[in-house]
Amino acid sequence: MPGNTFGQLFRISTWGESHGETIGVVVDGCPAGLPLTEKDIQKELDRRRTGQSKVTTTRKEPDRIRIMSGLFKGKTTGTPIALMVENRDADSSKYELIKHLYRPGHADFTYDMKFGFRDYRGGGRSSARETVGRVAAGAIAKKLLARHKIRVFAFTRQIGEHVAQKFNRNEIEKNIVRCPDKKVAAQMVEAIMQARKQGDSLGGVIEVVAQGVPPGLGEPVFDRLDADLAKALMSLPAVKGVEVGVGFEAARLKGSECNDVFITQNKTITTATNNAGGILGGISNGNDIVVRMVVKPTSSINREQDTVNQKGKKAKIRVEGRHDPCVAPRAVPMAEAMAALVLIDHLLRHQQSQL
Amino acid sequence: MPGNTFGQLFRISTWGESHGETIGVVVDGCPAGLPLTEKDIQKELDRRRTGQSKVTTTRKEPDRIRIMSGLFKGKTTGTPIALMVENRDADSSKYELIKHLYRPGHADFTYDMKFGFRDYRGGGRSSARETVGRVAAGAIAKKLLARHKIRVFAFTRQIGEHVAQKFNRNEIEKNIVRCPDKKVAAQMVEAIMQARKQGDSLGGVIEVVAQGVPPGLGEPVFDRLDADLAKALMSLPAVKGVEVGVGFEAARLKGSECNDVFITQNKTITTATNNAGGILGGISNGNDIVVRMVVKPTSSINREQDTVNQKGKKAKIRVEGRHDPCVAPRAVPMAEAMAALVLIDHLLRHQQSQL
Amino acid sequence: MPGNTFGQLFRISTWGESHGETIGVVVDGCPAGLPLTEKDIQKELDRRRTGQSKVTTTRKEPDRIRIMSGLFKGKTTGTPIALMVENRDADSSKYELIKHLYRPGHADFTYDMKFGFRDYRGGGRSSARETVGRVAAGAIAKKLLARHKIRVFAFTRQIGEHVAQKFNRNEIEKNIVRCPDKKVAAQMVEAIMQARKQGDSLGGVIEVVAQGVPPGLGEPVFDRLDADLAKALMSLPAVKGVEVGVGFEAARLKGSECNDVFITQNKTITTATNNAGGILGGISNGNDIVVRMVVKPTSSINREQDTVNQKGKKAKIRVEGRHDPCVAPRAVPMAEAMAALVLIDHLLRHQQSQL
Amino acid sequence: MPGNTFGQLFRISTWGESHGETIGVVVDGCPAGLPLTEKDIQKELDRRRTGQSKVTTTRKEPDRIRIMSGLFKGKTTGTPIALMVENRDADSSKYELIKHLYRPGHADFTYDMKFGFRDYRGGGRSSARETVGRVAAGAIAKKLLARHKIRVFAFTRQIGEHVAQKFNRNEIEKNIVRCPDKKVAAQMVEAIMQARKQGDSLGGVIEVVAQGVPPGLGEPVFDRLDADLAKALMSLPAVKGVEVGVGFEAARLKGSECNDVFITQNKTITTATNNAGGILGGISNGNDIVVRMVVKPTSSINREQDTVNQKGKKAKIRVEGRHDPCVAPRAVPMAEAMAALVLIDHLLRHQQSQL
Repeated sequence: MPGNTFGQLFRISTWGESHGETIGVVVDGCPAGLPLTEKDIQKELDRRRTGQSKVTTTRKEPDRIRIMSGLFKGKTTGTPIALMVENRDADSSKYELIKHLYRPGHADFTYDMKFGFRDYRGGGRSSARETVGRVAAGAIAKKLLARHKIRVFAFTRQIGEHVAQKFNRNEIEKNIVRCPDKKVAAQMVEAIMQARKQGDSLGGVIEVVAQGVPPGLGEPVFDRLDADLAKALMSLPAVKGVEVGVGFEAARLKGSECNDVFITQNKTITTATNNAGGILGGISNGNDIVVRMVVKPTSSINREQDTVNQKGKKAKIRVEGRHDPCVAPRAVPMAEAMAALVLIDHLLRHQQSQL
Repeated sequence: MPGNTFGQLFRISTWGESHGETIGVVVDGCPAGLPLTEKDIQKELDRRRTGQSKVTTTRKEPDRIRIMSGLFKGKTTGTPIALMVENRDADSSKYELIKHLYRPGHADFTYDMKFGFRDYRGGGRSSARETVGRVAAGAIAKKLLARHKIRVFAFTRQIGEHVAQKFNRNEIEKNIVRCPDKKVAAQMVEAIMQARKQGDSLGGVIEVVAQGVPPGLGEPVFDRLDADLAKALMSLPAVKGVEVGVGFEAARLKGSECNDVFITQNKTITTATNNAGGILGGISNGNDIVVRMVVKPTSSINREQDTVNQKGKKAKIRVEGRHDPCVAPRAVPMAEAMAALVLIDHLLRHQQSQL
Repeated sequence: MPGNTFGQLFRISTWGESHGETIGVVVDGCPAGLPLTEKDIQKELDRRRTGQSKVTTTRKEPDRIRIMSGLFKGKTTGTPIALMVENRDADSSKYELIKHLYRPGHADFTYDMKFGFRDYRGGGRSSARETVGRVAAGAIAKKLLARHKIRVFAFTRQIGEHVAQKFNRNEIEKNIVRCPDKKVAAQMVEAIMQARKQGDSLGGVIEVVAQGVPPGLGEPVFDRLDADLAKALMSLPAVKGVEVGVGFEAARLKGSECNDVFITQNKTITTATNNAGGILGGISNGNDIVVRMVVKPTSSINREQDTVNQKGKKAKIRVEGRHDPCVAPRAVPMAEAMAALVLIDHLLRHQQSQL
Repeated sequence: MPGNTFGQLFRISTWGESHGETIGVVVDGCPAGLPLTEKDIQKELDRRRTGQSKVTTTRKEPDRIRIMSGLFKGKTTGTPIALMVENRDADSSKYELIKHLYRPGHADFTYDMKFGFRDYRGGGRSSARETVGRVAAGAIAKKLLARHKIRVFAFTRQIGEHVAQKFNRNEIEKNIVRCPDKKVAAQMVEAIMQARKQGDSLGGVIEVVAQGVPPGLGEPVFDRLDADLAKALMSLPAVKGVEVGVGFEAARLKGSECNDVFITQNKTITTATNNAGGILGGISNGNDIVVRMVVKPTSSINREQDTVNQKGKKAKIRVEGRHDPCVAPRAVPMAEAMAALVLIDHLLRHQQSQL
């Protein structure tokens, strides 16, 4: 059954494989009248692009966006917006050699089990390359959110043992790991280079923050804002966990420590602390939305691993394609995009609820 | 916009409030021919029932299930199954006193912001009482899964500082906190009673395990099995985080440590370790599905807290209703139900994909 | 796969069988703050009730509505509204005799083919009794529409050879066939009584009109207003066709005859004629919405017919249950309900589109 | 709210405007392993292409299909299939002159009302050019149906006063109006040419037949097979009515005439007549599915008509673009495509229901 559509009122349908001809997305539900250019989208794609620094894969994809429909005189018309990039630098040769082997940590085995057939070139549809469509759609979502003074950003909080200690909003996009702590960022880069040298990889934690979100977003009891954010982030490749506000730390807190007391500030009701991460009962409370996701260390590592082939026979494998030694830096724009898609969808849903 | 329906092929729509007349659910998509009795459902409701032990609220709801449609001669007919319980022991008097105040940690404020109007008796729809419908539907899901030899169970892994050190499957339902480690269970009970005495509450971690899940379940790229499990669990009251397999620990692992190598066992391809928690690329790999969720300490605490009233004026509040001092024990059947609902939905979706 | 839910933003999920315990519906997406009483719903149920006149079945169901959730202090809260009636006068004895035979024109055979199993008492879920839930939900839809000054009504245009020649809005509910032409109404009654006497039945045409619908409702290209109305009406039992405006007559018209020219009236742009039935390009144009549906003659007739049993063996059947000799009169409130459900859904969808 | 997605298990999302850059569709839910080439799709697009005969518009669009994703080694992979054609022969000059006027019978006014903004070139998204995506997706649906020995075809039954009297399956694609009666086809062509000469247009009726449909397709109570077919066909441009089997004629029939009695033929239960059009209780009964739709006469006519401009001021308009004088011939492949999309969706849904 199809699973490539996301969102209810702001809905995206993505297509494309790592080494197929194109990657793209149809955005349905964008209101009419939004000024939109290819540049608006390109700048987000450039942030997720391969080959942007020494800590990312060396595959060089220009990722030039083409808006194929839905615009007239520079504005959205309320009809579907189709966005597409052509794949240019796919190199499938390395994959021919291992097409009968199951790469540990990858979706080769599970795709075979599901579909009985698989595009093994670069992981096919299971590749993170698929997120081009998400990030492109997310750029439109961010532009709409900006109209409502909602701003979404993300950053790398942790890579391996290195955890950001300081938060400087302006620092994030200045370093290649997208960490808000300049000093720790340098340690992260060093750790990644070290791991790569050892034919290994690192995991990390990304934090997403949304500011300016009005209270009231989220549709209990199932389509809660936190539930939809959890699904959105967990649907990204390599993500193994999602938490909101204090998250897993909540297990060790007492109610008297965890509750955020209500206060009035600038004539607005808000909370004195933000352990809730901006969400109560599945609905935004006006405070910053704070969500974190963990990405596992890249499964493709340049060292010999045990595995089996499609017939179950023991084999050795060494994955030689071009890979990020740590996906966290490029996962930052992906996480932002997914959070933005959820927020615009829920903003539209909430505005509707109040009619 | 409506948000009270969950699932695609096995779909539930719930209704009801804490102090309303009834709580219920319509289950649509259950295949015809499944033998089903009220007893099948009652036994699960009894596990989530209030007043079942000294660590739960003293509200006494019999929660007698009534099957209102969809059965003929003791079997499901493929048409909607409506399930209902009458609310019997609602005591709204305590809520009249605090109806203009916002209870910290609760959804009072956000429901007011969303709907401009709120059933303040017992939290209305935001109450965990709403999960009666989920658990009832989950009982049907579990029965269907059992036909496919899939078994779902959950347990309390952690409460406050106390973490289960041993795993004894048979121990879980023998103690009132549903912990698989008898010794730690006793400590947990002690900790909860202590917290209650102090007018405070505790958080915890629930782990859900699904055994016998065939490889192939999950619909990339958005409706991944892990993404849908994350949404399902995060949609439960008080949940602030969800993780799969190694979860947040993945941030500290290297690829060579985190990857599960493929092996052949009993002529079946599986993995030597299960860091992935049974899911690769969003699709089950045949290994046990392992998911955890964290519940925050109960927001209702029997001590004075600061807050504001609906007009934003400072106030003091003491929440005097009947509450669980720790929601973990009763969250166990809720987590099981949600996981079962996701699994049966994806089992049906996967079988459909292969046609 | 489930098919018992209708609507996107105003969404209903129905349950129940002809001779089961209860019939009901969950309404999700009704905005908060609407005053609602059981009386509002009862009056519509009374219009579709069995036994209301000599041209309807003699089954006597009081159809007492119970609102089971979603109200507080007499107003909707924005949470699901569950509505239910208990079945009281089911008589299954007649059905035991023919349980292995397929009644011509009925869904016995197709339900067996679909589910491999069937509740044969009164047609089970395929009975028009299922529409109790629709009409109950439609009553809420109508009340919401009235707030926006939108009024939906329907009437019997044709029964057998008798076609209404005059239109008197006030006459409709005054006669038992719900025909706006008093004289023709009498002929219709006579024709129905005649058919019943002969152990036969009659078909008819129902027309639905919606007044006050603002321009802009409908979501091309698939969820057009006319497309959703067509689905809604065609989903009613016994309906074999739906048309909008001039409908099938359009095949014989020329463009110059069929086009409605635009004019300005009371400073509002409208059309001089209404061949379009108020819908252009799938979107309402502000003129009256006019839709018609045809109902086939009741399949249950009190005379011997040829058929086969479940094993395919030839048999004779005489259907002796209690049946309407013509479904048109009671189909009037059903058609109104479905049209109202589509209109409120699209009103909410359109308001959302404009944000 | 978005309305450009159709189908549940076989789901399509279309994009594109008459004079935009591209037209396309994403098909999600096509099972893996289906051999598919661009030729399979091209042949259907060629049937709906403009400029194919003297009774169609003179706009010359090659409509070269490009498969942009979802294939590997000539087979579908179970992932989304994106299909696209580039618009080549759009001529927007004629539309600049009338951009402030509302063309009678067109969606100009309603799109302005809905979106407050409109791509006026060639009708933008409201143009029948949008159906390229539907027909392309329908080609895949037809190929899948053929695997199950289900064949869908359509033909022109009526144009103006001319109604086919004979049915020769092989004749349909041999004449330019796609009528199964050679003699009447010639009269239809003559009538169309005559209408065009007079600056006028004609309406017509298309009949769709599906053979080999197994019993059991359709999901009561809302997603009935007939209800979904009605929505699908009514969502095509210019359609004003849909009927199944005897359709509107049912109003004049008696139950004893309309009921199809069950018989056994070749050891299979079927019906002696097919007044039901192959659908009972919303579920296919194994007989041929027979559905008809009426298309209104083309709204664009080459003669002066009254209208108003966007400010409501009276004006005269003459629509000079290139148009079909009767849409029926090209609506035949469109109707086939929509019926095929519904049938494959319901085939998958039914197979799922039986698991």
